[in-house]
Amino acid sequence: MISNKMKDLVANNSIIRVMFEEGKRLSDIYGKENVFDYSLGNSSIEPPENIKNTISEILNEESASLIHGYMSNSGYEDVRDKIAQFINKKHNVNISYNNIVMTCGAAGGLNILLKTLINPEDEVIVFAPFFGEYRNYVNNFDGKIVVIPADINTFEPNMEALKNKISSKTKAVIINSPNNPTGVVYSEKVIKDLSKVLSDKEKELGISIYLISDEPYREIVYDKVKIPYILKYYKNSFIGYSYSKSLSLPGERIGYIVANTDMDCFEEVMASLNVANRILGFVNAPSLFQRVIANCLEDEVDISVYQRNRDALYNHLINLGFSCVKPQGAFYLFPRTPIEDDKKFCEDAKQFNLLLVPGSAFGCPGHVRLAYCISYDSIQNSFKAFEKLARLYNMKQV
Amino acid sequence: MISNKMKDLVANNSIIRVMFEEGKRLSDIYGKENVFDYSLGNSSIEPPENIKNTISEILNEESASLIHGYMSNSGYEDVRDKIAQFINKKHNVNISYNNIVMTCGAAGGLNILLKTLINPEDEVIVFAPFFGEYRNYVNNFDGKIVVIPADINTFEPNMEALKNKISSKTKAVIINSPNNPTGVVYSEKVIKDLSKVLSDKEKELGISIYLISDEPYREIVYDKVKIPYILKYYKNSFIGYSYSKSLSLPGERIGYIVANTDMDCFEEVMASLNVANRILGFVNAPSLFQRVIANCLEDEVDISVYQRNRDALYNHLINLGFSCVKPQGAFYLFPRTPIEDDKKFCEDAKQFNLLLVPGSAFGCPGHVRLAYCISYDSIQNSFKAFEKLARLYNMKQV
Repeated sequence: MISNKMKDLVANNSIIRVMFEEGKRLSDIYGKENVFDYSLGNSSIEPPENIKNTISEILNEESASLIHGYMSNSGYEDVRDKIAQFINKKHNVNISYNNIVMTCGAAGGLNILLKTLINPEDEVIVFAPFFGEYRNYVNNFDGKIVVIPADINTFEPNMEALKNKISSKTKAVIINSPNNPTGVVYSEKVIKDLSKVLSDKEKELGISIYLISDEPYREIVYDKVKIPYILKYYKNSFIGYSYSKSLSLPGERIGYIVANTDMDCFEEVMASLNVANRILGFVNAPSLFQRVIANCLEDEVDISVYQRNRDALYNHLINLGFSCVKPQGAFYLFPRTPIEDDKKFCEDAKQFNLLLVPGSAFGCPGHVRLAYCISYDSIQNSFKAFEKLARLYNMKQV
Repeated sequence: MISNKMKDLVANNSIIRVMFEEGKRLSDIYGKENVFDYSLGNSSIEPPENIKNTISEILNEESASLIHGYMSNSGYEDVRDKIAQFINKKHNVNISYNNIVMTCGAAGGLNILLKTLINPEDEVIVFAPFFGEYRNYVNNFDGKIVVIPADINTFEPNMEALKNKISSKTKAVIINSPNNPTGVVYSEKVIKDLSKVLSDKEKELGISIYLISDEPYREIVYDKVKIPYILKYYKNSFIGYSYSKSLSLPGERIGYIVANTDMDCFEEVMASLNVANRILGFVNAPSLFQRVIANCLEDEVDISVYQRNRDALYNHLINLGFSCVKPQGAFYLFPRTPIEDDKKFCEDAKQFNLLLVPGSAFGCPGHVRLAYCISYDSIQNSFKAFEKLARLYNMKQV
């Protein structure tokens, strides 16, 4: 009885649910501390203490009608203004509240953006490996996702392949840096090269190609690496931002879309984002948390916790003979699997109580994703299990 | 550059924005207290004091990771369980957390429901006058909205017209009681008659017809009127509920969908609602407010404030010679306009600083919507303006 589009999605979702149930089953048998769940990108770090204080302050100082009431579908103007000023100072750009629409997280942001841009059959290009939800978001609006195969040595965008895939049907390109699932950060050179390819193709084909940078992991970076601010490099660019990871508030659904003032049809696009926020049923980003984040723009979570996890797990895997690009951001590792069949590898891992996600789920088979946003103790305790897994495949330890 | 679907919507939205700007302009000239804005359904009543206390308690007693973290896309199980128990007790039904999906308000709920049910070209029936957003929600999934003309004497559903409009393409019927824009409440007889028409047609055509009851105004009722609980009357039924009006929390985007256990394909439908919540970008209803409302289920806003407004405004309009069905719920009046052209009437009203919404916006021309969820003082102060408006049309005062 459910719609055709949803039928397949529900079937696929059951696979994830089976995995979740499997984790529960293993926990019941072996104890929760003996099951190593690397499958979920659910942060282990608490939100900054200031969040709690800020909520109390807002509840005590502002009127309840303001805190919990309707505002523009794009969000409170004063909140958007504060965010704009913060971005201007940090990234040396010149935007205002008019460039920003507050959204229900990055997921809500990407959906109102695709609703705004996509006609049926329009193409949206992504680089493998990519966050699997992009496929669903594009499909929501009957767009076609076009996947550029992974460069498995660097996990950076393959510019030649990109050139070949762009056509007059191309409407947008989605990038995600720091990347889920690889953790790779795109350098300034990559962004410049990408911008040049897109600008050249826009001229050649006489079309607008929108670049959407999905940046929920922007603040989760190590080794003092810098993430270029995309609006400075490419005219038709958007950033989808979220406070889910940067302030450990994933359940609160708070983020924003920021658009480049110079883009084609800027005013029409912003008006459309406003309407799309309303008619897709978001109406507006949750009101209290709009006000909360406006007062916590300088706050951050303690990234060193993730970095210690990354270093410990990465070193252990390399010592066991795994091959893995060392990531500079996010909280994922994406090593190659010692056998081609990444799904079988994940099945095999379960016998050692290791829960991993096959690379196929990200359009990149022969790899596996480990979400290391779990406790350091869990990571340490899982080392023996990885050793057994490596032995199963007779991997040569370093 | 924006999508074809969005182009028209943006154009239409500009009209609403023009009205909003007009309100601002008038306020600047005549002073805010001399402009009577009956155009917005934005509640004037403060949320119950207990909301603030409950937030503090949750922040002090529960872990931040639980409060602000991810949970099932359908919402926290303990929250859904509390709501289910509350509903069971209040309405003498027998549901569990499995019947409930927490949503970003009723708007989010209707969208995941339509995503679940609708294939392109499927028909969704609504009764005029209806909340204009239904048209957009159905259009999001390429469904076709089928409008049953209003019975302007009662604003109750016309069963004969309904019978004639149901076809093998009918997938769902949306009702909204208490109604926006009329304020009318559907009696138990209406619900029974409606259920019978739908059940008979299901058998005759060999299809499932889902009844969606959109109930954001369920708690806003006067004169001790009872609203039938739809799940008790019709097998294939859903209720879309929201705390926007019942607890004056419209900005927080918190509500739920509850489904009848006996419906066709219950488990598949619930699984699909879960996935639709994720892939449309809601991911989950805002987490803190899920926990808040679970602790405020017995709370309510002071309805007598709205009732006093209704009585004063209704009586005044009747005395001036307006014709209006006296509503028993919501915070709207929907009188006939003294001239056929409701848009011109609203234009005329502006010269007396009255901001009203033409009935055409709700599929029912020749009427006008007044949202009386404003202060009692404003209502009293607007009486002279209505008198002048009535005089403009030489209306015969009672």
